[in-house]
Amino acid sequence: METALTQKLNIQYPIIQAPMAGGPTTPELIAAVSNAGGLGSLGAGYLTPEQIREAIKEIRKRTNRPFGVNLFVPEQTDVSEDIIEKMNNYLNESRTELGISLNSLTPDLKETFKEQVQVVLEENVPVFSFTFGIPSQNIIQEMKQHGIVIIGTATTVEEGIQLEATGVDAIVAQGSEAGGHRGAFLGNANDALIGTMALLPQLVDHVAVPVIAAGGIMDGRGLVASLALGASAVQMGTAFLVCPESGAHVVYKGKVMTSSEDSTEITYAYSGKAARGIRNDFINKMRFYPGIIPAYPIQNALTRDIRQAAAKANNPEYMSLWAGQGVRLAKELTASDIVKQTMEQAAALIERLNKTRN
Amino acid sequence: METALTQKLNIQYPIIQAPMAGGPTTPELIAAVSNAGGLGSLGAGYLTPEQIREAIKEIRKRTNRPFGVNLFVPEQTDVSEDIIEKMNNYLNESRTELGISLNSLTPDLKETFKEQVQVVLEENVPVFSFTFGIPSQNIIQEMKQHGIVIIGTATTVEEGIQLEATGVDAIVAQGSEAGGHRGAFLGNANDALIGTMALLPQLVDHVAVPVIAAGGIMDGRGLVASLALGASAVQMGTAFLVCPESGAHVVYKGKVMTSSEDSTEITYAYSGKAARGIRNDFINKMRFYPGIIPAYPIQNALTRDIRQAAAKANNPEYMSLWAGQGVRLAKELTASDIVKQTMEQAAALIERLNKTRN
Repeated sequence: METALTQKLNIQYPIIQAPMAGGPTTPELIAAVSNAGGLGSLGAGYLTPEQIREAIKEIRKRTNRPFGVNLFVPEQTDVSEDIIEKMNNYLNESRTELGISLNSLTPDLKETFKEQVQVVLEENVPVFSFTFGIPSQNIIQEMKQHGIVIIGTATTVEEGIQLEATGVDAIVAQGSEAGGHRGAFLGNANDALIGTMALLPQLVDHVAVPVIAAGGIMDGRGLVASLALGASAVQMGTAFLVCPESGAHVVYKGKVMTSSEDSTEITYAYSGKAARGIRNDFINKMRFYPGIIPAYPIQNALTRDIRQAAAKANNPEYMSLWAGQGVRLAKELTASDIVKQTMEQAAALIERLNKTRN
Repeated sequence: METALTQKLNIQYPIIQAPMAGGPTTPELIAAVSNAGGLGSLGAGYLTPEQIREAIKEIRKRTNRPFGVNLFVPEQTDVSEDIIEKMNNYLNESRTELGISLNSLTPDLKETFKEQVQVVLEENVPVFSFTFGIPSQNIIQEMKQHGIVIIGTATTVEEGIQLEATGVDAIVAQGSEAGGHRGAFLGNANDALIGTMALLPQLVDHVAVPVIAAGGIMDGRGLVASLALGASAVQMGTAFLVCPESGAHVVYKGKVMTSSEDSTEITYAYSGKAARGIRNDFINKMRFYPGIIPAYPIQNALTRDIRQAAAKANNPEYMSLWAGQGVRLAKELTASDIVKQTMEQAAALIERLNKTRN
């Protein structure tokens, strides 16, 4: 199933494994997807430049096929000490609950985007994708000179139009169903919760570059639906979350396997940025927070000890359980089987549709 | 394009015009869709039994093809005088803005569901659909004895399972993209904002009756995508809103034609029940209402004079501009051309997909 985009990416099948930052995208998962004919992607937003270099080395040990690296475009954050102090006080309840030390520190955030980009360039990564904004023209042009394929993320038509103007090679259309962080960078992320069924055709009508569908796509049905709506490929995250190759915590995987389509919600609780995850005690608790949640990346830094302690204690109620609305369709298969079954199901489906046409 | 559902409904094409209550679904629109090979539907929720009978007569003058009538299943509402008084005071600001008399009355709501159902039975309407809940088994069984095809509305898998258990012949899967009122009847309507791409395959996997896709479907692309996801037909509302046959206010049509995918939001402002509409002054104003919005149908009755005055004054800022997230794709075509073009585009699309398969 060849499209202009699969040719550009030099992959066999129009399936991209979503770059889920924070653990799931191990070199094993990425290589397995790429070896199966899709495009594995490293969610490198939270990694240090050294960790990214190390991960790329590990991926290359396991595959000589193309793969992608995804970074978070940094944003201006100006959060007052007062807001941080209030949040720390509130979070101390959760810290007590988890039996970890209380905290009142203002996080020391070191901005490493430039260094992260440098690694992508030096390592000549085949595909570079980004979310939360648009990198500078310098970066875009340098990537292009290296022959790196560049993919941006849009949640509205207007974001897609702006991305295309900067020179990206393809655009991920992130529908409201998608798990994890919203890629919105214009206006309010909550205003831009456009379902994939509506977002895709409208975006495709307004840009000339290939569009990659994301949000609620879990199998061959979602793939064919996305192609029908005008996508050139799909990006699947939740579908790969419970693979044995995924680095997601085993308790997180368990929650994914027992959740349903209405188990998730958009929350700012964990990171200060809108993200879709499985509802749990922490999200419920933060819904009643009587103040302003510090913006990303401050809140993300503030909750790190809580998330780490929860992981250590196998306590899903304080972990960030990012997942999309297609969660009932998650299957515990190898990454390679997911790619294979998705393609087989898609082919059979198109054949069946073609028969009803006559 | 025949499916088990088109056979059951005795229609040529798997396209159902959504039963948009409150004006758009004129006998002209309904008959035009049915005559074109789809299924026209009367949004009769707000109509008196006499008005429904009259509308059915007018439809039958224009077509001998099947059509549907949709009713709202009534809910228990218990709203205190105090809450109503507060809301009336708040609404008086908008009334002043519109230059109409202030109001402090508690609406006198006459429950007419039984009488509405009686008309559907007496008139032997070919298809009966409902939203907001499930009618009694008496009603369902009587409909069945009359040979009326029964369609319910679900926004989650669990709602679909409950509907199937009551004996409906088909289920509309209402994705979060859909315009107008949410059909949710279990839990909180806002918890159940599942995108069509995710809702459809999960619902299809859990029920045996045919599923009708709704939400963001505007053309042949949406139709093919829905069929791929397992739907047996689509229900399109916003797509038919600006047809010349539609009874929507001309200013409302104008707003639809100039809106974009992120122009809508879910609001309780107009009716006390969650519904998706184009953002305007009234919705913005009600977002800051410092109290409890009375539940449907109380709030709906309270805002009626405001909506009517706005319509009379051609003022879209106080009209309920229900529309889905696919709004950029609305075209000013006749209903018959929409059905025709959707089918042609779908056939061409399937042919193209089938070529990429090889």
